Amino acid sequence: MTGQQNMLKMMSLKHLLVISLALNVGLISRVMEVSREEKHVKKVKDDAGSKTVSYSSFLPTSTAAPAAQDDGSIINLDHGDPTMYERYWQQMGDRTTVVISGWQLISYFSDVRNICWFLESAFANAIVRLHKQVGNAVTEGRHIVVGTGSTQLYQAVLYALCPENASEPMSVVSAAPFYSSYPLMTDFLKSGLYKWAGDAYKFSKDEPYIELVTSPNNPDGASRVAVVNRKQGILVHDLAYYWPQYTPISFPADHDIMLFTFSKSTGHAGTRLGWALVKDEEVAKRMTKYIELNTIGVSKDSQIRAAKILNHVADSIEHGPESKRSDNFFEFGYNLMALRWAQLRAAVHRSDLFSLPSFPSGTCRFSSHHFKPQPAFAWLKCERDIEDCEGFLRRHKILTRGGKHFGVGPEYVRISMMARDEIFDRFTDRLSMINLESHHR
Amino acid sequence: MTGQQNMLKMMSLKHLLVISLALNVGLISRVMEVSREEKHVKKVKDDAGSKTVSYSSFLPTSTAAPAAQDDGSIINLDHGDPTMYERYWQQMGDRTTVVISGWQLISYFSDVRNICWFLESAFANAIVRLHKQVGNAVTEGRHIVVGTGSTQLYQAVLYALCPENASEPMSVVSAAPFYSSYPLMTDFLKSGLYKWAGDAYKFSKDEPYIELVTSPNNPDGASRVAVVNRKQGILVHDLAYYWPQYTPISFPADHDIMLFTFSKSTGHAGTRLGWALVKDEEVAKRMTKYIELNTIGVSKDSQIRAAKILNHVADSIEHGPESKRSDNFFEFGYNLMALRWAQLRAAVHRSDLFSLPSFPSGTCRFSSHHFKPQPAFAWLKCERDIEDCEGFLRRHKILTRGGKHFGVGPEYVRISMMARDEIFDRFTDRLSMINLESHHR
Repeated sequence: MTGQQNMLKMMSLKHLLVISLALNVGLISRVMEVSREEKHVKKVKDDAGSKTVSYSSFLPTSTAAPAAQDDGSIINLDHGDPTMYERYWQQMGDRTTVVISGWQLISYFSDVRNICWFLESAFANAIVRLHKQVGNAVTEGRHIVVGTGSTQLYQAVLYALCPENASEPMSVVSAAPFYSSYPLMTDFLKSGLYKWAGDAYKFSKDEPYIELVTSPNNPDGASRVAVVNRKQGILVHDLAYYWPQYTPISFPADHDIMLFTFSKSTGHAGTRLGWALVKDEEVAKRMTKYIELNTIGVSKDSQIRAAKILNHVADSIEHGPESKRSDNFFEFGYNLMALRWAQLRAAVHRSDLFSLPSFPSGTCRFSSHHFKPQPAFAWLKCERDIEDCEGFLRRHKILTRGGKHFGVGPEYVRISMMARDEIFDRFTDRLSMINLESHHR
Repeated sequence: MTGQQNMLKMMSLKHLLVISLALNVGLISRVMEVSREEKHVKKVKDDAGSKTVSYSSFLPTSTAAPAAQDDGSIINLDHGDPTMYERYWQQMGDRTTVVISGWQLISYFSDVRNICWFLESAFANAIVRLHKQVGNAVTEGRHIVVGTGSTQLYQAVLYALCPENASEPMSVVSAAPFYSSYPLMTDFLKSGLYKWAGDAYKFSKDEPYIELVTSPNNPDGASRVAVVNRKQGILVHDLAYYWPQYTPISFPADHDIMLFTFSKSTGHAGTRLGWALVKDEEVAKRMTKYIELNTIGVSKDSQIRAAKILNHVADSIEHGPESKRSDNFFEFGYNLMALRWAQLRAAVHRSDLFSLPSFPSGTCRFSSHHFKPQPAFAWLKCERDIEDCEGFLRRHKILTRGGKHFGVGPEYVRISMMARDEIFDRFTDRLSMINLESHHR
């Protein structure tokens, strides 16, 4: 293939993409406005002479940017690093800047009257406020337990649910494909309290078990319910992705144990913060005990910062689900994910070597948008005779996570949809250029 | 005993204390200056109209404060909550205020080329700088691993040192009295990798083991070396208290694995941050793996804040160990601990029911002070016929941690020396009033 042919192919992909996007999220008129708005943003930037710019559009600005030539470098989409949100927060300038004095937050303790004695009340209040506004989880009658990411909370839940003196470790299951870290986190210390027992569909023992229900699911974005459904089971709902940028919010989740994480809601992965909504007081106490023994609480600096950021998100949507404020956080995320999924589906269509899951559409009770889920990960399947999808993409310098990590076959890979714009654009451009010719070469 | 007698007794304690303090730390002339300086601080406060005041003395201002009447409330000195440092940081005003924008520190990653890929370089640089200045640990040829407090690092070390496929869990020992959390942290998950094996003095198995060497020791403040000394042993040095406010720095520690914590060095317990200096690359990698699986890294907000605070401490002592800058952090800590130990020893002397450890004096290579260790905890022994020291003090509404938690008898208790001034003053006042009469009553 000549360079000219390449260029032609790439240009037509972009064309296809813009049409697809416009059809998909009804943004035709907005696409036309982008270059005007970009000029406006640039002017504000020049005027202000700083990074603090007014955010004049919630349509991602990258749509109108010219396609950068692929330089052939490694594109790492293995981890779910949510750097796509960085641009939104840059556009918010100083509005979520946190200032902490040296004499603040010295003590281990936040509120000794609370079961979770290291939970900062400002953070707890922001969590309750945001869940009420979004309508994605019931907070009434729940204890909040803060963790160093939902990763720590997951381990706290296992500790809390497993009896100390059982003769056998408790089985922990989740329907495949399941989050690749579950088996590792469960088994790495060879605990006598719990053990990973694999795919929930294959679990047949007549004994107590814990079933992890991740909905929307990581890696494949599916809406999930429990699959084992036996009377000795305890359910843990991992709702990291149950936010309106990824999926229509259909009801406020009302389970006994629900896990959320700061990294996937607002994008602040470096802050290491998650929270659990827990109905049973004893479970909340045991989870708190785990975190006390594991890390003596959770960084208060992070909690104070998270409170400010969550309150900003709540402010940005304050005027109800139909608020079209230009700084509406979930509109930014929703539009960016819509664009990216359109871009990815166009690339997959062009390449003809891969397939993606299809989802039923639904109406979001929060945003009123009627849309199909646009997950934080793409669960890509290699078609034709490609057996090792991860290896195949690696040869094209695209790093992904193969199906075997998620309890299924190597024809699947998980791809992060949350990278920075330039990385994601380069990825879809490169993916669209992969064809059987290059495969057999 | 009448109220007048009580008052007389309390006044004479204060008198005794001031003399004792003056003799102990050579501060007679400074004690005389306190009231003048307090007036000066008050004036600066009034002038500034804010909490930001110039710090005009490193003699703790509480020495001249009148004794508050004991209101009989509960005095909780069970935990080592280092709130005594709050006053110093208040006096520093805005000098260690950290400002973090909403768009900063989004990613999970800090530096993917570093073994510890979630370690912020600003934090790493501050650690190296401070250790070099204080001379308490060798950093050359070491990998730095950051943890969510040294508590997490302790667990990371166990994971790193224990082979994955051993038939038996590795024994973990420490000489009694040992830190009360060691047995709990080691055994709470019933790991198949390691198990708590108790007092190192009693360990006699001919098999691989890990020995924790805590020096200065928590709870008793003693300088420690390994006691088992067999060839299959691996040593872990917990140096949380090896700082010049607590003990003379006699040499730069040069061990294979050394743990430090932010909470006991600068007092920022709410920030949940510790660091390990690790010689062996494989051990550093495995520790990093533990933290990845346990919490996917360590809060960057906390690391950025800690970098600023550690750099302030380094600035305050920049002009060498004999620097007498009025904001010298370690001088503040040294003088406050000297005062408190004098105050405690006076109370113990007055009461005649208790005893405290005695320590050999030494010259600190950092500060040049010649002094006896003044640990962060007092290891108090009940004398006479008091068998349950924790229970005895609890009846006087003083909460401490009994000897059995540390692997020894109930005649001992550990008492935090790091509470806020008013709590500590009330404690020593109350302790000095306890006598056999009240005991037998």
